[in-house]
Amino acid sequence: MRDRLTAFMERSDVRNTILAVIVFNAVLLGLETSDAVMTATGPLIPLLDKLCLAVFVAELLAKMIGQGRRFWSQGWNLFDFFIVGVSLVPGAQTISVLRALRILRVLRVISAAPRLRRVVEGFVTALPGMASVFLLMGLIFYIGAVMSTKLFGDRFPDWFGTLGQSAYSLFQIMTLESWSMGIVRPVMEVYPHAWLFFVPFILLTTFAVVNLLVGLIVNSMQDAHQVESNERTDTYRDEVLSRLAAIEKKLDDSAQEGRSEIAHDRL
Amino acid sequence: MRDRLTAFMERSDVRNTILAVIVFNAVLLGLETSDAVMTATGPLIPLLDKLCLAVFVAELLAKMIGQGRRFWSQGWNLFDFFIVGVSLVPGAQTISVLRALRILRVLRVISAAPRLRRVVEGFVTALPGMASVFLLMGLIFYIGAVMSTKLFGDRFPDWFGTLGQSAYSLFQIMTLESWSMGIVRPVMEVYPHAWLFFVPFILLTTFAVVNLLVGLIVNSMQDAHQVESNERTDTYRDEVLSRLAAIEKKLDDSAQEGRSEIAHDRL
Amino acid sequence: MRDRLTAFMERSDVRNTILAVIVFNAVLLGLETSDAVMTATGPLIPLLDKLCLAVFVAELLAKMIGQGRRFWSQGWNLFDFFIVGVSLVPGAQTISVLRALRILRVLRVISAAPRLRRVVEGFVTALPGMASVFLLMGLIFYIGAVMSTKLFGDRFPDWFGTLGQSAYSLFQIMTLESWSMGIVRPVMEVYPHAWLFFVPFILLTTFAVVNLLVGLIVNSMQDAHQVESNERTDTYRDEVLSRLAAIEKKLDDSAQEGRSEIAHDRL
Amino acid sequence: MRDRLTAFMERSDVRNTILAVIVFNAVLLGLETSDAVMTATGPLIPLLDKLCLAVFVAELLAKMIGQGRRFWSQGWNLFDFFIVGVSLVPGAQTISVLRALRILRVLRVISAAPRLRRVVEGFVTALPGMASVFLLMGLIFYIGAVMSTKLFGDRFPDWFGTLGQSAYSLFQIMTLESWSMGIVRPVMEVYPHAWLFFVPFILLTTFAVVNLLVGLIVNSMQDAHQVESNERTDTYRDEVLSRLAAIEKKLDDSAQEGRSEIAHDRL
Repeated sequence: MRDRLTAFMERSDVRNTILAVIVFNAVLLGLETSDAVMTATGPLIPLLDKLCLAVFVAELLAKMIGQGRRFWSQGWNLFDFFIVGVSLVPGAQTISVLRALRILRVLRVISAAPRLRRVVEGFVTALPGMASVFLLMGLIFYIGAVMSTKLFGDRFPDWFGTLGQSAYSLFQIMTLESWSMGIVRPVMEVYPHAWLFFVPFILLTTFAVVNLLVGLIVNSMQDAHQVESNERTDTYRDEVLSRLAAIEKKLDDSAQEGRSEIAHDRL
Repeated sequence: MRDRLTAFMERSDVRNTILAVIVFNAVLLGLETSDAVMTATGPLIPLLDKLCLAVFVAELLAKMIGQGRRFWSQGWNLFDFFIVGVSLVPGAQTISVLRALRILRVLRVISAAPRLRRVVEGFVTALPGMASVFLLMGLIFYIGAVMSTKLFGDRFPDWFGTLGQSAYSLFQIMTLESWSMGIVRPVMEVYPHAWLFFVPFILLTTFAVVNLLVGLIVNSMQDAHQVESNERTDTYRDEVLSRLAAIEKKLDDSAQEGRSEIAHDRL
Repeated sequence: MRDRLTAFMERSDVRNTILAVIVFNAVLLGLETSDAVMTATGPLIPLLDKLCLAVFVAELLAKMIGQGRRFWSQGWNLFDFFIVGVSLVPGAQTISVLRALRILRVLRVISAAPRLRRVVEGFVTALPGMASVFLLMGLIFYIGAVMSTKLFGDRFPDWFGTLGQSAYSLFQIMTLESWSMGIVRPVMEVYPHAWLFFVPFILLTTFAVVNLLVGLIVNSMQDAHQVESNERTDTYRDEVLSRLAAIEKKLDDSAQEGRSEIAHDRL
Repeated sequence: MRDRLTAFMERSDVRNTILAVIVFNAVLLGLETSDAVMTATGPLIPLLDKLCLAVFVAELLAKMIGQGRRFWSQGWNLFDFFIVGVSLVPGAQTISVLRALRILRVLRVISAAPRLRRVVEGFVTALPGMASVFLLMGLIFYIGAVMSTKLFGDRFPDWFGTLGQSAYSLFQIMTLESWSMGIVRPVMEVYPHAWLFFVPFILLTTFAVVNLLVGLIVNSMQDAHQVESNERTDTYRDEVLSRLAAIEKKLDDSAQEGRSEIAHDRL
């Protein structure tokens, strides 16, 4: 029965139905943001939303039963489980943050549509290669946050009062948003040498971001290169080498034959 | 007669005349923005503009008659038809938006100049390959818009009052324009944890944009690579393999000959 | 005498002296910006500056006499001539803009230092390949300027009053500086659908810039590739093909020899 | 004894202990920014911090004694020496800037973790190749600073009063932060043609940055290419050429043999 359940869940019409429910649910959650629509439709939208949720729960249960333990070893299943689970937490209908998180269900489109899945998987597999640059970035941010809190925290508590506030301000500065007019020029009125901290910080983080970008480009270029060109090159090279070996063998054979024949003739 | 009309429209002097009319019309529409010029020239500029329009309509009609049904199957023809058609809509001389849209006629330069055409075509053909990243981007925007409307809409109706306003504000945040000083810091004064929504949003959309860029670079690199290098490589490889085959054949022949001769000698 | 003059100007110690004078002049012009330094040194700095100018004029004259007509056919000579000439225009010591332009003399470092020259030449040679994208960009800007002047010029004369003001504002919007908070949100308060103009404008110009960048990367990649790898590949390929040809020739020779010998034996 | 000391310092458990002390110290210096934590823990954190410093000093001394003169020839040792030395400068516990610089000790993670070390070394080795672009950038900035000081310094002393202020403002303009609304529009109210200076400046510096980026991408691409693909290609090519040489030699031998045999037969 388990196998039949799994097979049923993988039928393309079942998958498309689920996909349609996800999109329909996305539209519902979009309409929910409009007060005019909500008052006009009365209890219709929350009802339909609960129905969609029921479909998702049923789908998850079917997968759990069908796949048994294997269910928990697949990342996308955990992703779906977490996303659907958020709406079942007690208070999900009343606490506004939990209510807002329900829209994350739309992300199920990613796990349900293979092409989107591949984009996300491509990104996730690229992450480990960028780990050391991320670590370096984290280091720069931590050092920057501690230094700016100690140097400017007393006089500019809104921007650099705590480590967290400093990290946020430094993130803003890294994105170059109002870094000078908004933050560094006011700071320089109190500490005229503050640019000695901020300008190198901008250069360093920009460098790290550029490094990430370059790494990403080089990696995907090489991947694309290998898949496409190496295969053809390899078959060509194998052919050349095997033909050269064949020619050498033939030459050896004919030399051998020649010699044995000469020997035969001389006898 | 149809063929003669098409041939006439494709003569290089006719094409250049059309191109000159487009450029002349562009200058006219530029002059129209200056009140000083308009009062000095009186009814001259609108008259010349109507003349240009007449030329365009005549050109389109000639093409329609010449090409018959094929006219409607070519994208650039539809492009020209739409652009010229805008100026013929009733009210085009009075409604300010329609008047402003007349300048779009200058875009006809693209369909008339082959080099510009190729750039635009290159862009259009690159679009399908980026479809899944665009879809992902749309998903992030839709989810972001629903969440921000629900979370911040009540207190910040100007920025996050409706789905549309939220989407616009998120687009602004994605371009990093005043995202922190202008929007997130004021929001954080009411909801101190708002950065938990906005910072990941910035990172995600920036990632998606970078992904698009990397995809574009890798694609055009590969295209350029294949056109240029593979041709030469292929002719070289074909030559090597055919020569190797020739050598093998000669060796076989000489071995055969040798053997038959030995047989002949022994007889 | 002409050849000796040209040879003298190309001696490395003469070139280095000129380079030193350029750098020294750059420092002088930097010091000139400080009122404190100027009052302390009195007429010293203007005097030294005139001396430097005299050296440049002498150098140019020497080159002109030495090279004769060829002088005017080299881009870098024209560059030097223009830059030095600015300081000799009547009024160059009194009109502030002309005084400020004297610092452009420092640009002579580029024509005097081969490495910098190569960077600039690399850039200049890359320009023609980007011509069609620049043209497209110009088209987008012209259309955008005409449309925004007609649509928003009446109500926002400071930003969109004339074609020139509109082009400047659109350039600012393209660089994403204060595009939303500074310009588009105020405009949307009067024309709520203004985003239909500005958001596509941002997307289009960003696309064009990205296109330029991608083109640049792909071009320099290919250049770098060809110079470095093709040379080695070509010598390898030539060697393989010539060796294969030699083997075939030897096989033909030995077959010929074998046949002639058999014929000889049979006789 | 020296060798034993060096061997001891390079044992993996000693290295990991040092790494742990660095991380622990980083946390301490982070906690130090919180007044609440500092009053709650009393003298504990400064004490632990001094202990960490003692460990670093001991480590450095051990390395100095162990490596002798070689110690001073390695960049990373000098890096550690400088970073630890900052905390030992007299007044390091009282002058706030020196106190803040203590957090730089966390940078020791880079010299202690090989992967981070490689990223930084990769960056440092890429610098010389970018030297000429940096020089060009410096030139543009210097010329820009002198010109803007002379042109706008009198009326806008806060932004362009001195060479240093101008350079800072131009850096801000290069990052595109508030360049138009914040700086150029106010300047244009006094000098309407100021855009003739600022717009080309933005285009030039953006070009230089793009040039740097393109250079970086092309370089790392080529490096990645050579390491990965050339090795395999080289072994393949060597094999083909040596096999071809072997075939030619065999053909020569058999021709030689044939000829000598014929000579033998004829005798």
